[in-house]
Amino acid sequence: MSEPRYDVIGIGNAIVDVMSPASDELIEELQLNRGGMTLVDGARAKELYDAMGPAREISGGSAANTLAGLSALGSQCAFIGQVADDQLGEVFAHDIRAVGIDFDVPPRPGDPSTARCLIFVTPDAQRTMNTFLGACQFLPAEALDEEAVGGAKILYLEGYLWDPEEPRAAMRRAIEAARSAGRQVALTLSEVFVIERHGDDWRALIEDGMIDILFANHLELFALTGADNIEDGIAALAGKVPTLVVTRSADGAIAVRNGERAAVAAEPVEEVVDTTGAGDLFAAGFLYGHVNGEPLERCLRRGAIAAAEIISHYGARTEVDLKALMAAKLGQ
Amino acid sequence: MSEPRYDVIGIGNAIVDVMSPASDELIEELQLNRGGMTLVDGARAKELYDAMGPAREISGGSAANTLAGLSALGSQCAFIGQVADDQLGEVFAHDIRAVGIDFDVPPRPGDPSTARCLIFVTPDAQRTMNTFLGACQFLPAEALDEEAVGGAKILYLEGYLWDPEEPRAAMRRAIEAARSAGRQVALTLSEVFVIERHGDDWRALIEDGMIDILFANHLELFALTGADNIEDGIAALAGKVPTLVVTRSADGAIAVRNGERAAVAAEPVEEVVDTTGAGDLFAAGFLYGHVNGEPLERCLRRGAIAAAEIISHYGARTEVDLKALMAAKLGQ
Repeated sequence: MSEPRYDVIGIGNAIVDVMSPASDELIEELQLNRGGMTLVDGARAKELYDAMGPAREISGGSAANTLAGLSALGSQCAFIGQVADDQLGEVFAHDIRAVGIDFDVPPRPGDPSTARCLIFVTPDAQRTMNTFLGACQFLPAEALDEEAVGGAKILYLEGYLWDPEEPRAAMRRAIEAARSAGRQVALTLSEVFVIERHGDDWRALIEDGMIDILFANHLELFALTGADNIEDGIAALAGKVPTLVVTRSADGAIAVRNGERAAVAAEPVEEVVDTTGAGDLFAAGFLYGHVNGEPLERCLRRGAIAAAEIISHYGARTEVDLKALMAAKLGQ
Repeated sequence: MSEPRYDVIGIGNAIVDVMSPASDELIEELQLNRGGMTLVDGARAKELYDAMGPAREISGGSAANTLAGLSALGSQCAFIGQVADDQLGEVFAHDIRAVGIDFDVPPRPGDPSTARCLIFVTPDAQRTMNTFLGACQFLPAEALDEEAVGGAKILYLEGYLWDPEEPRAAMRRAIEAARSAGRQVALTLSEVFVIERHGDDWRALIEDGMIDILFANHLELFALTGADNIEDGIAALAGKVPTLVVTRSADGAIAVRNGERAAVAAEPVEEVVDTTGAGDLFAAGFLYGHVNGEPLERCLRRGAIAAAEIISHYGARTEVDLKALMAAKLGQ
């Protein structure tokens, strides 16, 4: 087998985040799902945008954020996702390529537009996301470059994208391509509502040994396993998922890899400004360590440091030299 | 005459800023006009965008930034400028309306697209701007709501927009409408290259007593008057412009109003992050005081405080409660 071309290839939603500070009153008035991610149609997106304060646009998308972090750390990455042939599609494509990530899926002509996520950030730094998926839902299975997938050490799948039908088919093909090339498959569960809709699919994939690395926050762990505490949740997946990473926001994170267990506290942050992307960047730090064969605790530390950086400012794309920051924190 | 509906109505470029940190080496490699504003065509804009790092999009435009500051302080404002019927046009319109500014010019269908300004921010916090004017150049004189102009205490004109022909005609009509309604006309000179091209127009307007309030930085003052020092520059305009405001970056600002003179030091800033919009927000603070009949020194202080806020973060739109900040600083 030839030398892998990529460290990580990711499949996810190609989204531009539209972010604005918001009062708690506005969240109530608009009846938003505080702290969560809600899918919205075009009409609701317009209604929410009209009610939103002045905003800024920053490329986002869960897996894309993770890859941007990985790329900043020095990993070779590629992204698969669908934008439309419009200005926000250009913005997304520019921003992901500008950090050195290969992105070759052609924009999709016509409606719907490129996805946008309307993010209301409350004074407690919590983000409330409202996603208009637009073109994302039409990522065709043919967009999948199976050679590229087979040529990446890790295939990283964004759980959100399991919901629409076409991308789900693309992801299934990607899993096959990765497995038959002897690569690892990583999945992030993304959000409880996706588990409610597709948990059976994922439990079956896990039972079949198709998932090598699983990222979940504690609520997602509960939803997937039916457990009501972290230990039971971890026990339910033990032996089925070679590497399990459970993030717990301010309470840190736990990982179990091939029977070895490690935990890390959350990295202190001077001021939490916007929690958007915390999980995505935790995954970036962890995967960077993992793909480079580092000890489990160090992988977790990298995750915690990357997450702390992202929540200290607006937006889910790293703003500092993440490689240098990590070297300074880890003393190397 | 009826009670004015607006404090300030502004005519300016309707631009979305595309901002990215950049190294000094990149500025050299791309042969950019460091610290200045350069007009670029579509091909050059594409070339520069391709070479730019990951960016964020924040609404901009000089007069629009000034109005956004005024609106945050509590002034009633309206904006006149031209966007295209595209996503960036929607972004611009949303952001300006979201701060409470009336903006009724319909988007222009077809090409060219909404204007964007590619801003490279170097480690010294200096911004190097490259503007693709797009739809801005086609603001038609008919877009001018003469009743609205006549119903604003101050008409604020962005010098940049004097360059393209159609908006220049619109601005001339606006000056007539304002003068015949007995309103004040304010002009910001924007950039030396515009003075090189249109200085004769402006000197004639000033000689004719059509400009009540003039904003210039020291370089623009030199270009307009031919002086090589600030005192000579001020003397050259004395008696011709009732209110003259000369900004001097870190050296503060000077104003002369009806023979009275005042000066202010620059407001201290913990860390200068991005100087984009410093002049625009200085004008916002000054005009807020001026339109409310405040003493000259207080108008300048307001300008300095608003400018200090804007340069302490990315982007040229205020991020804090400017009214509260100013009340705290001015002790009222």
